[in-house]
Amino acid sequence: MRVSHRAVIEVSGRELDDVLEESGVSTPVYVYDADLAVERAREYREAFSWFPGDVRVCYAMKANFNPHLVEHILDETRAADVVSLWEMRIAVEAGAEELVVNGNAKSDDELRAAVLNAWVINVDSMEELRRVERIARREERRARVALRVNPEVDPDTHPHIATAVEGSKFGVSLRDAERVCRAMIESEYVEFLGVHYHIGSQITDLEPFVEALRSVRRFLEETGLVEELRYLNVGGGLGVPYRMDEDVPRPRDLARALREDLKDLHSESPGFDLYLEPGRSIVGEAGVLVTRVRQLKESGNRRWIFVDAGVNALIRPALYDAYHEVVVHGGDYLETVRASIAGPLCESGDVLAEDREVPADVSEGDLVVFLTAGAYCESMASNYNCQPLPGSVVVRDGELVGVREVQGYDEFRTVWE
Amino acid sequence: MRVSHRAVIEVSGRELDDVLEESGVSTPVYVYDADLAVERAREYREAFSWFPGDVRVCYAMKANFNPHLVEHILDETRAADVVSLWEMRIAVEAGAEELVVNGNAKSDDELRAAVLNAWVINVDSMEELRRVERIARREERRARVALRVNPEVDPDTHPHIATAVEGSKFGVSLRDAERVCRAMIESEYVEFLGVHYHIGSQITDLEPFVEALRSVRRFLEETGLVEELRYLNVGGGLGVPYRMDEDVPRPRDLARALREDLKDLHSESPGFDLYLEPGRSIVGEAGVLVTRVRQLKESGNRRWIFVDAGVNALIRPALYDAYHEVVVHGGDYLETVRASIAGPLCESGDVLAEDREVPADVSEGDLVVFLTAGAYCESMASNYNCQPLPGSVVVRDGELVGVREVQGYDEFRTVWE
Repeated sequence: MRVSHRAVIEVSGRELDDVLEESGVSTPVYVYDADLAVERAREYREAFSWFPGDVRVCYAMKANFNPHLVEHILDETRAADVVSLWEMRIAVEAGAEELVVNGNAKSDDELRAAVLNAWVINVDSMEELRRVERIARREERRARVALRVNPEVDPDTHPHIATAVEGSKFGVSLRDAERVCRAMIESEYVEFLGVHYHIGSQITDLEPFVEALRSVRRFLEETGLVEELRYLNVGGGLGVPYRMDEDVPRPRDLARALREDLKDLHSESPGFDLYLEPGRSIVGEAGVLVTRVRQLKESGNRRWIFVDAGVNALIRPALYDAYHEVVVHGGDYLETVRASIAGPLCESGDVLAEDREVPADVSEGDLVVFLTAGAYCESMASNYNCQPLPGSVVVRDGELVGVREVQGYDEFRTVWE
Repeated sequence: MRVSHRAVIEVSGRELDDVLEESGVSTPVYVYDADLAVERAREYREAFSWFPGDVRVCYAMKANFNPHLVEHILDETRAADVVSLWEMRIAVEAGAEELVVNGNAKSDDELRAAVLNAWVINVDSMEELRRVERIARREERRARVALRVNPEVDPDTHPHIATAVEGSKFGVSLRDAERVCRAMIESEYVEFLGVHYHIGSQITDLEPFVEALRSVRRFLEETGLVEELRYLNVGGGLGVPYRMDEDVPRPRDLARALREDLKDLHSESPGFDLYLEPGRSIVGEAGVLVTRVRQLKESGNRRWIFVDAGVNALIRPALYDAYHEVVVHGGDYLETVRASIAGPLCESGDVLAEDREVPADVSEGDLVVFLTAGAYCESMASNYNCQPLPGSVVVRDGELVGVREVQGYDEFRTVWE
């Protein structure tokens, strides 16, 4: 008799291999649990329901713009944070009713779209304000603007995704922000709504969020701008647990941490609405990357598992030194060994996970699944080494609602005509 | 009277803005000088012309697989180093007559294509050899194989691209390689040709190349395998100058450094041909990424130039901490200032160049050009932040021979259907 301890991944209540079989999609494939993403978005709304004004949860499209998934999230949030023309288009096609437009270098076309649709523009600098004014004047509209301020808070995250440190490319330092806000108030081409800030991504400590809000609050009070405030956008940035034993704050913890300051601020200035821009914390845990073992290899005293997706499909380990948990779906974890998991790319950096516990009997054809791969994974995929873009399967209420096969050669080739 | 000192970039004898105007392509766009790439490939052939056997320069497709450019390079080399099925297809479509098939985790389809076309397979491990044999048996062919050995030489390059250090995912250590070579010799399903090694990429010191060749030569002599040798593949890896003042060895320097050992080896075993796999050193200097200034910004005492391409188009600075020279085409360098150049992505890591000298009068709409962007740049581009893939223009003998517009929304959207 043999006792087994099989690892089984469930997506929207169904076993992963069952979902894959029904989809007919090969590997590598991103599989999304839309229920979970929608639940997380709802959790944000509910967590801030005590706020006296309106609360808008603007899903940050850059975390994952897969249209088959986005439509479910936007069906809940109705609002999105966008950073490019194509994100605008996908968000609108998916039913977004309100967009906030971000970015340090918006194109004229992006600004024009924002002006014509009366979407809020989080203006990045005095220089950009002048460009917004030119476009608004030409279009004979008043642009709805807020200023992105930099509260110069340094969260404990990867430098690539800490966005509000001194010298960052984003926003205007609080030392210089009043001048720009006043220019907005005085301008005949824009309507000043308030301020926006965003301190970074994958932040798992609440303190920087509180610190940033207090800095901005102090700025608003000291400058008297608090009286003009109709819009306060506190950005996103809440982290997700990339390690199984990691305990990270949830939307309700963030809401609790910010509650007192936000309520005080609202009592001073009852006219403002609260905007949030969560991305990763909505979608991060709702996705996995499913790969298949192509080749096993023992080399010296190192054991390798080579799968059919490389850093072209999941660049976070190479780009941010990121960690994703790895599970061999259906694998027997009673007897395990240590192995590193790498992709097929001809590049040493193409290693997805180092020194992990895997079933001793892991074999060619087994499904190796990278967890917490819903955010900043598929959205960064490329054709490096002429590898296909992964497929994707979206599951909602146990039903396959969006199925996309792994990219084919003809489609790939069209891009290069 | 005003003296100017204008920076002008020439491509295949023509000024860059003239090329762009004729192409009609917008920015961001990769512009390639096919003359230079072909010249570099020819330089390899000529540099090794003293070798008594055949010399095959196999262009490493992964450096740049843009079909419009590849056809010119392969017209010269007639041979390519490929790492995926799609690279095989592009290489064959571009006229390659001989392919060598690399990779640590080739798919069954890739191995089958290699077997059926009698392309050389650089086998990565004993485990892979068994898979090659299975496929060859099924197809009733003898696969042409060499073993990728790991000479465990540590070049002074970025760890992501050092491929022959101990514990690398690639190849078989020289301590274990004889066993695999003997298994190849004894197998009825494969034909043993010899050995392959590749120590890494962007190597600018010749010593590791010599060291690796000597290790492999010693291995061949000590094991007696030198008598069976019909194929010696010394890989690629020669660097290019990313900084203007950098002096890097050229193909003829590499050839000179390897000459004595290769000649000695050939006199011991006159039956082998020499294979090389240059990629970056053929194509790296032949490409530039042309971007346009979208927004200027002064922030504290830091000056920013925001251009219309981000790390989605050029990820090397973020991924490898790489340096690319930046030139403002047509800019007056008599009066200059220091500035950092960043893209439009909503991510702090989206900075392409830090603290560079730029013309004091740099303005919106100016062309900001990243040099030495022919290798591992366009091939790694992605749609992150829903940014379009850059366009590309290939110039040969002053003529525009391959013109591809910046990606459009409909094409992008098709990928996500």
